[in-house]
Amino acid sequence: MSFSCFPTLHAVRQWSNVPFLTVPLARAHGKSFAHRSELRQAKRIVVKLGSAVVTRGDECGLALGRLASIVEQVAMLQNQGREMMIVTSGAVAFGKQRLRHEILLSQSVRQALHSGQNQLKDMSLPVLEARACAAAGQSGLMALYEAMFTQYSTCTAQILVTNLDFHDDQKRRNLNSTLHELLRMNIVPIINTNDAVVPPPEPNSDLQGVISIKDNDSLAARLAVEMRADLLIALSDVEGLYDSPPGTDDAKLLDTFYPGDQQSITYGTKSRVGIGGMEAKVCVQAHCVKAALWALQGGTSVVIANGTHPKVTGHVITDIVEGKKVGTFFSEVKPAGPTVEQQTDMARTAGRTLASLLPEQRSEIIYALADLLTEKREEILSANKKDLEFAINSGRMPASMLKRLSLSPSKLNSLAIGLRQIAVSSQDSVGRVLRRTRVANNLDLEQITVPIGVLLVIFESRPDCLPQVSALAIASGNALLLKGGKEAANTNRILHELAQEALSVHNVRDAIQLVSTREEVEDLCRLEKMIDLIIPRGSSQLVRDIQRAAKGIPVLGHSEGICHVYVDHEASIDKVLKIVRDSKCDYPAACNAMETLLVHRDVLRTPLFDQIIDMLRTEQVKIHAGPRFASYLTFSPSEVKSLRTEYGDLECCIEVVDSMQEAVDHIHKYGSSHTDVIITENEETAEQFLQLVDSACVFWNASSRFADGYRFGLGAEVGISTARIHARGPVGLEGLLTTKWVLRGDGQTAADFSEQGSMKFLHENLPVAQPLTGQRTSN
Amino acid sequence: MSFSCFPTLHAVRQWSNVPFLTVPLARAHGKSFAHRSELRQAKRIVVKLGSAVVTRGDECGLALGRLASIVEQVAMLQNQGREMMIVTSGAVAFGKQRLRHEILLSQSVRQALHSGQNQLKDMSLPVLEARACAAAGQSGLMALYEAMFTQYSTCTAQILVTNLDFHDDQKRRNLNSTLHELLRMNIVPIINTNDAVVPPPEPNSDLQGVISIKDNDSLAARLAVEMRADLLIALSDVEGLYDSPPGTDDAKLLDTFYPGDQQSITYGTKSRVGIGGMEAKVCVQAHCVKAALWALQGGTSVVIANGTHPKVTGHVITDIVEGKKVGTFFSEVKPAGPTVEQQTDMARTAGRTLASLLPEQRSEIIYALADLLTEKREEILSANKKDLEFAINSGRMPASMLKRLSLSPSKLNSLAIGLRQIAVSSQDSVGRVLRRTRVANNLDLEQITVPIGVLLVIFESRPDCLPQVSALAIASGNALLLKGGKEAANTNRILHELAQEALSVHNVRDAIQLVSTREEVEDLCRLEKMIDLIIPRGSSQLVRDIQRAAKGIPVLGHSEGICHVYVDHEASIDKVLKIVRDSKCDYPAACNAMETLLVHRDVLRTPLFDQIIDMLRTEQVKIHAGPRFASYLTFSPSEVKSLRTEYGDLECCIEVVDSMQEAVDHIHKYGSSHTDVIITENEETAEQFLQLVDSACVFWNASSRFADGYRFGLGAEVGISTARIHARGPVGLEGLLTTKWVLRGDGQTAADFSEQGSMKFLHENLPVAQPLTGQRTSN
Repeated sequence: MSFSCFPTLHAVRQWSNVPFLTVPLARAHGKSFAHRSELRQAKRIVVKLGSAVVTRGDECGLALGRLASIVEQVAMLQNQGREMMIVTSGAVAFGKQRLRHEILLSQSVRQALHSGQNQLKDMSLPVLEARACAAAGQSGLMALYEAMFTQYSTCTAQILVTNLDFHDDQKRRNLNSTLHELLRMNIVPIINTNDAVVPPPEPNSDLQGVISIKDNDSLAARLAVEMRADLLIALSDVEGLYDSPPGTDDAKLLDTFYPGDQQSITYGTKSRVGIGGMEAKVCVQAHCVKAALWALQGGTSVVIANGTHPKVTGHVITDIVEGKKVGTFFSEVKPAGPTVEQQTDMARTAGRTLASLLPEQRSEIIYALADLLTEKREEILSANKKDLEFAINSGRMPASMLKRLSLSPSKLNSLAIGLRQIAVSSQDSVGRVLRRTRVANNLDLEQITVPIGVLLVIFESRPDCLPQVSALAIASGNALLLKGGKEAANTNRILHELAQEALSVHNVRDAIQLVSTREEVEDLCRLEKMIDLIIPRGSSQLVRDIQRAAKGIPVLGHSEGICHVYVDHEASIDKVLKIVRDSKCDYPAACNAMETLLVHRDVLRTPLFDQIIDMLRTEQVKIHAGPRFASYLTFSPSEVKSLRTEYGDLECCIEVVDSMQEAVDHIHKYGSSHTDVIITENEETAEQFLQLVDSACVFWNASSRFADGYRFGLGAEVGISTARIHARGPVGLEGLLTTKWVLRGDGQTAADFSEQGSMKFLHENLPVAQPLTGQRTSN
Repeated sequence: MSFSCFPTLHAVRQWSNVPFLTVPLARAHGKSFAHRSELRQAKRIVVKLGSAVVTRGDECGLALGRLASIVEQVAMLQNQGREMMIVTSGAVAFGKQRLRHEILLSQSVRQALHSGQNQLKDMSLPVLEARACAAAGQSGLMALYEAMFTQYSTCTAQILVTNLDFHDDQKRRNLNSTLHELLRMNIVPIINTNDAVVPPPEPNSDLQGVISIKDNDSLAARLAVEMRADLLIALSDVEGLYDSPPGTDDAKLLDTFYPGDQQSITYGTKSRVGIGGMEAKVCVQAHCVKAALWALQGGTSVVIANGTHPKVTGHVITDIVEGKKVGTFFSEVKPAGPTVEQQTDMARTAGRTLASLLPEQRSEIIYALADLLTEKREEILSANKKDLEFAINSGRMPASMLKRLSLSPSKLNSLAIGLRQIAVSSQDSVGRVLRRTRVANNLDLEQITVPIGVLLVIFESRPDCLPQVSALAIASGNALLLKGGKEAANTNRILHELAQEALSVHNVRDAIQLVSTREEVEDLCRLEKMIDLIIPRGSSQLVRDIQRAAKGIPVLGHSEGICHVYVDHEASIDKVLKIVRDSKCDYPAACNAMETLLVHRDVLRTPLFDQIIDMLRTEQVKIHAGPRFASYLTFSPSEVKSLRTEYGDLECCIEVVDSMQEAVDHIHKYGSSHTDVIITENEETAEQFLQLVDSACVFWNASSRFADGYRFGLGAEVGISTARIHARGPVGLEGLLTTKWVLRGDGQTAADFSEQGSMKFLHENLPVAQPLTGQRTSN
């Protein structure tokens, strides 16, 4: 379709110095959103593209991929039924590019006519007049937008405005009704200042001053309020608002900004050099903020974000609309509690005090929490009842999840018993000396266990997870951020209050923080340098999602449990039946359940094999045949699609191998290094299997279901890890600890031990079983 | 500039069924490139965009961002002086979109005229004729390309061809000379089949068959050879060639494909459903491969890659031209050695045997390597001389690097001594029992140390790193991939041969592999699931680069060492002067050198402080003042830009604190958790500092330079880690080990221990100091 078939406004009028915002606003149209998560409801959205987004640094070539991706997102949102408007910069840069080229061409033609000699190199390009550039660029810029939007069956219309269009009531009404008409027709208005008629640049101002970025910011704000937009997204090349100048030691990007806090902002310089001197930039950001505040006052929510960052540009607009933590969100309503960043800071500080307590003191806290679980039983159960009722009324929760959500007096009792066990085991976790070396005379080295720092534990439905994980964190001296599911919000809240009450015993109340259910897991996974370890507790899907989302923060856990049981030809019938049944059927959804049964070829035509099949049939286990096994059968059950499948249900694969070695090879090729079992009466075969299989857990004549922290005797379980660094297999308290090296000397230097030095290394190992050092209370 | 000012070829001629490639090629123009790294030299490049790249699945909206990014890359390469040509699909999809819209419009107009009632919902869209779509889409597609290329000041020209244009000699010459003329004029030709005149689709063939993707592949190949292009990049929605059907358990993407291997390919189905049935897809890929082989035979190198992958599209073309491992590279020359993937496989297999040897046997290998360093001294030194001469002749290597590159008899001697120390310490590394638990009667659990798996060690210039790292890997039973710098290629080669010779003693020659210098570090860092741990040994820049490049593989190391020395007001003058001098001046470039000196306020106006300053001046240390310190001075030295600076040189920052606690806070806020020191005579203050500071190494009255594996008495050092999981601080052999859990039972199941079960857990800790189990030789 052609551009000209839609109304196009060239609101070219006389220029004026009056900024867009000086005209008093008729009225605010309502309340802006209080929280990012509400941005999903935004229907009418203004997207402002700063010149940094549309142009590329000094080269002034358009950042095509960036622009295309923005168009794609805007079109997508428009096709969702939202009403999108774009306020764009860039015509000057666009035209500069074009005019340069034309001048070069005309110069070279002139040259060819006049001299015939190659003097191209000597020719310098004239300084291009900005308004000429703007005029030359406007048509190309619009053509580009139109060509791009057409690909999404989205129509655009061009609107050129000046300050004065808002100053004059009649003009304003005209513009207003035109824009409404366009939105009604499902057309995306693309609004630009009419650069050709704006004033020339001030002396000492840079070329791009003509675009009047300031005016572009305020234009967008003005339009957003005038059109009663729900959201204004202002994209430039700054990440958002910082509490100190970006680049300085303390600068932190503000996730949410409240107008009441305005005095606390330092308007920083931008990270990229682009447009003019230092002061101009500060000014730009200040003005941008002013425009944002003005829009907010008018009832439009605002997000300021970076539209030039290559990694995020692909989603910056849609991410903002989905409520993700991108840039700075302007909100009128300051939430009651601290932000998650503040919670993390509070937790780290209190956690350091927790770590410096005596082990007995940490135990006391855990005992106190265990007692509270019994004392406050009524409150807990009544909060849990609320969650349950809500879940039942919503009618969307399956029975299995309801069961996990529900607490009972007996569940609370066993929870309290478990906590008291953790209290006992916490006695020698932190500050344990692992290694003690006399490096030289009067120079002693100790390696001691210390907490990891700040843990983030993300758990689903089961609220009993909260006191358990809290006890583990307390025992290991770690600070803890808890993120529970919405469905258990009431139960989690009271349990968290009890944990903090227990922590208060030793004045470290803030060491455990419950994150608001409104926070997105994905955003939490990005808090690099604030969180040291993420522990997902829930489905393997949850673990996978978090492993994918975590940027630069290690995640403890396994995403797959493809466990094998290998039945050797020298296996005992009884043991095979017992172990295979238990491994598959005890709890088929567990990660340590058997997925593939490997059978020695010689077992195949024996009564044992028939008994195995009979047992699996009785237990209603669906059998899939591996290719080798299928080839032995006349009527084969369904052949497996992949030997690398985690069924997580009453299903398993059976495959045939020629030998123990072949079983090992199969496990290495298709397994997930979680838990693998051999059943045999031949000790030598068993020991070889135990040695050769490279998995976190390798068992001989025992069910794969033993791969579990509690069954291993580790006390409470943090999780099971299939990683090859840090903790591996079932992880107890140990997995929440790291070490630190403490050296005590009396003035020694490295030079003392050089060839010219006077000292020699002893490196004498000292016994570690001595009283703990460095464990004093600091409060 | 306008499109029409440049020659545009509409080579519209009669259609023909003759495929492009049946016409015999006049002659091949030379040899294709033998290795990806040579692709940088490609001058003339044909980029083929399959319909999957240009259109988006079934929606047929153009994937605008994707296309924009491709245009950006092509324009960039063109501006580098290369001659780029594009063979594009997409006009049909483009036109379909447009025609649908027009039909909808005209229908609704008709409807408005005839009935006035809303019957829009009942109207179904007609099936659009493909050739009409092609004709309607062509102009829009070209306009889009032109609008995009214009942003990079790059001109395009449209060429429409049919098979017959290549069949007729005269037409071929015409086309050929037109294309050459365009390239000469720095114009990017955009070539498309003339869909409007090609035959109608076959029965049962899908709509898009009209585009004749097959012909598009062969068209690109034909053009590439005809125009003597150096490289053909064929982009579609498959990753490249697999050795088995993609999605099956064994499928591996081929990095490089040699025509001689053709019989081994399985033409897989594509991952995305897009165009027609299963067979069509297999056929497409087969035809694509055939076209690629044909081009290769004609002397044009070919890379087939995925142009739709959102993460890589941004760079797919430039990455290919830079020689990175993207898609499948077609090469005529099969390199002599194995690929790096094959090397990794070989290393893992041999590594597993290495791990199953007796500790004494691993020691023997290390002793053998130590002996070889002395025995083969002459060969080593002569290889080293070659590297040195080359480095000196190139004249680009600074003296400090030459020194690190050069070996000497004494260096080799001390290297051999170090190796023998590792041999000793290797005795109890693998298979050590860390924990032994009696879970129940006849159910015993052991946690034993095992190797991590396959290590990748990346090291710069210093060739002595190779035997050292090899010995560490052997001692810990790990497989090892070594990637050394080009500058030490000869030395590394002989040292690696010696390592393999030593490994042959126990038949595990392949456990250590030297990666070709041609492999890109970045590509190696992407070998997820093949490599378990990456250890960079070299500058902190190297570490940072590798941490950034590593995807899903843990990296051992620290990228920053911002170490503090805190001088307490109760410090001894002598110790302060000694320790501060040593910490800063012993080796300023080291990561454990002091960067910030924290001074208690009370020290400030004392003679001690003057002595510190005098000492630093004598040592020519440049002093930067922290903001607090600066405020005390009348004439302050330059104030620091950031308190988080790693100078790595004879420079340091001085800052004033009020108390030990403030020093700790400063360290937590600005430090990198590497090594921090307190100097004081007050034991209580010292112990509090040691306890409170949360760094990998915390020292009292000792130089920060002691933070080192050798000085700590760990024997050989793997590196220093500031991570909070796995190893922390100086890392010895321990850091190369993980653990595995071995459970030995006699048929127990989890059900036996349930409430209804007959057994009870004992969880009794057994002493660990018993003979090693599971350590049998398997070969």
